[in-house]
Amino acid sequence: MATATQAPTSPAAASGRGSVLPLLRGRPSTRVRLAVGRRRQTALRAQPPGAAEVVEQSVNTIRFLAVDSVEKAKSGHPGLPMGCAPLGHVLFDEFLRFNPKNPYWFDRDRFILSAGHGCMLQYALLHLAGYDSVTMDDLKAFRQWGSRTPGHPENFETPGVEVTTGPLGQGFANAVGLALAEKHLAARFNKPDLKIVDHHTYVILGDGCQMEGVSNEASSLAGHWGLGKLIAFYDDNHISIDGSTGIAFTEDALARYEALGWHTIWVKNGNTGYDDIRAAIKEAKAVKDKPTLIKVTTTIGYGSPNKANTYSVHGSALGTKEVEATKNNLSWHHEPFHVPDEVKRHWSHHIDEGASLEAEWNKKIVEYEKKYRQEAAELKSIISGELPSGWDNSLPKYTPENPADATRNLSQQCLNALAKAIPGFLGGSADLATSNMTLLKMFGDFQKDTPEERNIRFGVREHAMGAISNGIALHSPGLIPYCATFFVFTDYMRAAIRLSALCGSRVIFVMTHDSIGLGEDGPTHQPVEQLFSLRAMPNILMLRPADGNETSGAYKIAVLNRQRPSVLALSRQKLQQLKGTSAEGVAKGGYIISDNSSGNKPDIILIGTGSELEIVEKAADELRKDGKTVRVVSLVCWELFEEQSEKYKESVFPSEVTSRISVEAGVTFGWEKYIGEKGKAIGVDRFGSSAPAGKIYKELGLTVENVIATAKSL
Amino acid sequence: MATATQAPTSPAAASGRGSVLPLLRGRPSTRVRLAVGRRRQTALRAQPPGAAEVVEQSVNTIRFLAVDSVEKAKSGHPGLPMGCAPLGHVLFDEFLRFNPKNPYWFDRDRFILSAGHGCMLQYALLHLAGYDSVTMDDLKAFRQWGSRTPGHPENFETPGVEVTTGPLGQGFANAVGLALAEKHLAARFNKPDLKIVDHHTYVILGDGCQMEGVSNEASSLAGHWGLGKLIAFYDDNHISIDGSTGIAFTEDALARYEALGWHTIWVKNGNTGYDDIRAAIKEAKAVKDKPTLIKVTTTIGYGSPNKANTYSVHGSALGTKEVEATKNNLSWHHEPFHVPDEVKRHWSHHIDEGASLEAEWNKKIVEYEKKYRQEAAELKSIISGELPSGWDNSLPKYTPENPADATRNLSQQCLNALAKAIPGFLGGSADLATSNMTLLKMFGDFQKDTPEERNIRFGVREHAMGAISNGIALHSPGLIPYCATFFVFTDYMRAAIRLSALCGSRVIFVMTHDSIGLGEDGPTHQPVEQLFSLRAMPNILMLRPADGNETSGAYKIAVLNRQRPSVLALSRQKLQQLKGTSAEGVAKGGYIISDNSSGNKPDIILIGTGSELEIVEKAADELRKDGKTVRVVSLVCWELFEEQSEKYKESVFPSEVTSRISVEAGVTFGWEKYIGEKGKAIGVDRFGSSAPAGKIYKELGLTVENVIATAKSL
Repeated sequence: MATATQAPTSPAAASGRGSVLPLLRGRPSTRVRLAVGRRRQTALRAQPPGAAEVVEQSVNTIRFLAVDSVEKAKSGHPGLPMGCAPLGHVLFDEFLRFNPKNPYWFDRDRFILSAGHGCMLQYALLHLAGYDSVTMDDLKAFRQWGSRTPGHPENFETPGVEVTTGPLGQGFANAVGLALAEKHLAARFNKPDLKIVDHHTYVILGDGCQMEGVSNEASSLAGHWGLGKLIAFYDDNHISIDGSTGIAFTEDALARYEALGWHTIWVKNGNTGYDDIRAAIKEAKAVKDKPTLIKVTTTIGYGSPNKANTYSVHGSALGTKEVEATKNNLSWHHEPFHVPDEVKRHWSHHIDEGASLEAEWNKKIVEYEKKYRQEAAELKSIISGELPSGWDNSLPKYTPENPADATRNLSQQCLNALAKAIPGFLGGSADLATSNMTLLKMFGDFQKDTPEERNIRFGVREHAMGAISNGIALHSPGLIPYCATFFVFTDYMRAAIRLSALCGSRVIFVMTHDSIGLGEDGPTHQPVEQLFSLRAMPNILMLRPADGNETSGAYKIAVLNRQRPSVLALSRQKLQQLKGTSAEGVAKGGYIISDNSSGNKPDIILIGTGSELEIVEKAADELRKDGKTVRVVSLVCWELFEEQSEKYKESVFPSEVTSRISVEAGVTFGWEKYIGEKGKAIGVDRFGSSAPAGKIYKELGLTVENVIATAKSL
Repeated sequence: MATATQAPTSPAAASGRGSVLPLLRGRPSTRVRLAVGRRRQTALRAQPPGAAEVVEQSVNTIRFLAVDSVEKAKSGHPGLPMGCAPLGHVLFDEFLRFNPKNPYWFDRDRFILSAGHGCMLQYALLHLAGYDSVTMDDLKAFRQWGSRTPGHPENFETPGVEVTTGPLGQGFANAVGLALAEKHLAARFNKPDLKIVDHHTYVILGDGCQMEGVSNEASSLAGHWGLGKLIAFYDDNHISIDGSTGIAFTEDALARYEALGWHTIWVKNGNTGYDDIRAAIKEAKAVKDKPTLIKVTTTIGYGSPNKANTYSVHGSALGTKEVEATKNNLSWHHEPFHVPDEVKRHWSHHIDEGASLEAEWNKKIVEYEKKYRQEAAELKSIISGELPSGWDNSLPKYTPENPADATRNLSQQCLNALAKAIPGFLGGSADLATSNMTLLKMFGDFQKDTPEERNIRFGVREHAMGAISNGIALHSPGLIPYCATFFVFTDYMRAAIRLSALCGSRVIFVMTHDSIGLGEDGPTHQPVEQLFSLRAMPNILMLRPADGNETSGAYKIAVLNRQRPSVLALSRQKLQQLKGTSAEGVAKGGYIISDNSSGNKPDIILIGTGSELEIVEKAADELRKDGKTVRVVSLVCWELFEEQSEKYKESVFPSEVTSRISVEAGVTFGWEKYIGEKGKAIGVDRFGSSAPAGKIYKELGLTVENVIATAKSL
């Protein structure tokens, strides 16, 4: 049986792929490969007496907390925690700055486990570090109903977990957003005498994260922005679910990162090369102008004599027999869930240290407040999330006399108003700023050398844009990121939008060109099903404002909903300012904008959203001329409407009025909910077409005439 | 005013970024930079007399057909066609092998314009090359209702267009799929004496495509697979919609591609360096073991004195004044839409040549049929799309006595049966083959050196997987690709799925772990809204089979629907084989699986899909014991059910039976359509949770008991 230090190493280390190069430290653009091998003993001599043993004990504690929890749950992923335990120990114990008794301390280092399936690594570390959120009971309840230790890290369940990960690549892109937020706030608020924002973002990603396109998008941006305080560890274990990564992933990842403008380091022995890990992190911290990728070659399931370095240890419990074999192999003669006293003692210093770190910072902020009153007020608003009083007064109001305008233009007025009123308001577009109308006119571009600015240029990278925005939102309660593209391209970023919703991160998704109304670009660019696909998603607001007042109302809602994201679908084409629309109406999700009936019993109810509300209103006018009583309802946000009282809903849609027509330039699927069995839905139950917008509307029957004819047919 | 050769060059060429290196041809892994500059005259001396002038005329014809079409439509993207006209001319006129009178000739080279907004380049080239699909009238109807020249290339509108592009990065990933198909078929069918499959795939991508994550995913795979006959042109024009690419895209793209295992070449003068373009393509064709990226530095809007090299020429008409200035600048003294006679004459040879190419190939295939009967039959089935007779007999059938099993396992039986019966059936998973149960047992892995095999290993790259599958499906009517991941990760590949639907490409999306029933992995992995988000999409079948017979039925439907993709949602957990389910039922989308009523008037209708159908059936049994008449309906595919006659629909859901309950482990949104105003929907209107599956089902009320209680409440 292999001993611990003889445990299988990964194929790469074994094959000698990437031979050892001379050390070239201090030359950030050169790839550095740290020497491999049995340097452990030498390395640890530099530590206090007994330290090496404690480290070893601590690392094995982490490994077996993971093994035992997975074993108890009969479900989970022991492989990564067993392989990354050395890295985890060194990073958390020796580098990470945090206060376990206040997981939300503003200036903490951020740690993200992008390879979220390895969450037992994070839970074990949080437990050892003294976080109250992960007690021994929590570890024993791993993956059980109601526990704080779910199958992937969830920020809304477990204080100390910064973001929700699991879907691969997302956590990494979140980390780019967290690092962006730090760089931005540091540039805005630090003073030569007071560095009030100063922390690092660390992230562990696996082979799976590397393969996902979103991580390349985010990496390209991180390199472009020169996010020097972002340090990523690539757990290079050569195993993914289907076996060796050699079957699908043979690129030279480090060379790719260099091409993307990163500093790269390779720790060839991540299993026992503690000093190499330490040296790599130190080197990475010294590189200020570039993010660093540290490739740490590890053995998945390290220590397991029969399963290490195989896919079988990736996502299943080891099984009683192999647990025993592994414990013997690593000389771990303890009951399940055992934490040796010396390990407890060793980690206990973090409680005092963490308290001191925060206390020091608190002193600094007091001094900062005295010296820099204005900046301190802004920063505190960002830290606390408290909105400046009267912030919403800045949102524009309209009357029907105001000129018709595209809601994307009206949106830009809101964005600029909010950025002026709210210190933490920032964002940008995926290379469509001039189409989405998202530029903040009073600010420049957030760039490598101008990080204090607030216009973020994401390039054509919708997916990373969404995930980076999640990271920004989760950095501080008062940071409110918006991000923009064409509505149809929510499809590119849907995985990130879903995590916004799940995480409860307040991102504002500014989605213009929201229907066939965009015209000539044709069906590839015309959303028809996106409204419903997002209405189907839990914990997100899908808003489709019809004019200026509704656009202002939609932004107000988006800002006020601190625990959920909002998607705003906005028109490319000009829309009239309607009588009867209001921000107050938007807050209810659905409301009556006009009605010539009495006694809550109109002949017919016409329902519209967004650009079609004006069609509906015109049709209503015509029908009224014919003597009908017609109610027009704007159903701008279904989710908000559903949250209203039954009484209110009945006041808008009285049960006895069954003549109802919905008009929306999208699929009619789902409208049954409001039009009922006898109603009719006018919409677009097909892909769109390339032609001038007016022509498409006419051909597809989204016209006043068709609404009138349909009404008469009821 | 600048003359043509003095027209602005791109910033990169001007700044000397990437200086000229010695030519290192024949060393594929080394980046080669072709010499820049005024080599045009020397180069063209090698051509027949007068050829240089015709090329120049042809290139300007392409430019102005684009300019004039956009001008007439008052909408479109002239910049790319003006910049890429030299590349387009050289590629189509001198390299591409095609038969304009049969755009579907099997062994044609494939050309994809991934930067689809520049479609006027492709339309102009198809027109000059003699395709009947793009007449002068079509060019004049650019971007108009009903025309064959829509705002982005659409394969379903315009013969000669291979795939639908526009959403950036997709076309590039499609090209990887097309090249994969060629490599696979060549390996399977070519013989030492008869090369029956032998064509290249060419693709033009822009900065936007480069930035999209999907292109990096696809590039990594193309490099891994060694797709030597894939040649990609990167139109490096340094301008995207928001201005200089320098604001968001400063990576070293060529170095990235080298890291991904590509051969790379840089043509520094794509504006007038015809010979450099020719040399690059020749070199690329000579590299057999790697795909090649040719970076072609061009000037967007080349020739426009005031707009070239600015974002204003990217996506808007030049305007009358600038059109005139451009015509003067390029000495183009013609009416709009003019094609000089010598240009027509020059291009006319493609009609005969194309016919000859196809005739030669036809001769070869006749010989092939004689010599290799079995292979010829398979290949012809792939080329024609005709399914072998009795193919569907291979699909397994079940009785209630067969053991309970997960539909993902039952799916694997279908996949293996179909791969045996259908020569063009192939596919794989995004690193979840052993979870999705998608391995074809009789085949090995499609890899660089074993391209004849049919198990494709996509790695953790869902988005590229979808787009590559689209390319495979569109390569030949008889290629039927399937691709697999967890159902929730359809979110990662939604943009590709949408294009499957729009293109009408028959991809089978095998999506397992289709609900909270996957258990412990928790809400990040548990789809709840995905069923509806896909039901909302036009032209796609969303199937959720409940057991073995329905799984077989779902596959039959998926194969039979040649013009639309299918998504199969499959369970992780075991499900009973139900009495009453059938493949014939699946074909109708919704059908009665049990009923103890008579006269089409049950007391209640219980509706289920997939894993919940067994819950519904059990509840029905209990209710029947209480003396109720209960109908159970499996609504396995809403789209198919909607296509049935009104009479059939009424026979399943009689209007007068308003007591209806739906049970589905997903959001209830949308079920109003079938349960009506008085019905109840049991489902999951929230994100899931990390716990054992049975526990989650119980906590969320997806139980027999709850169905019974709900039924009694109605």
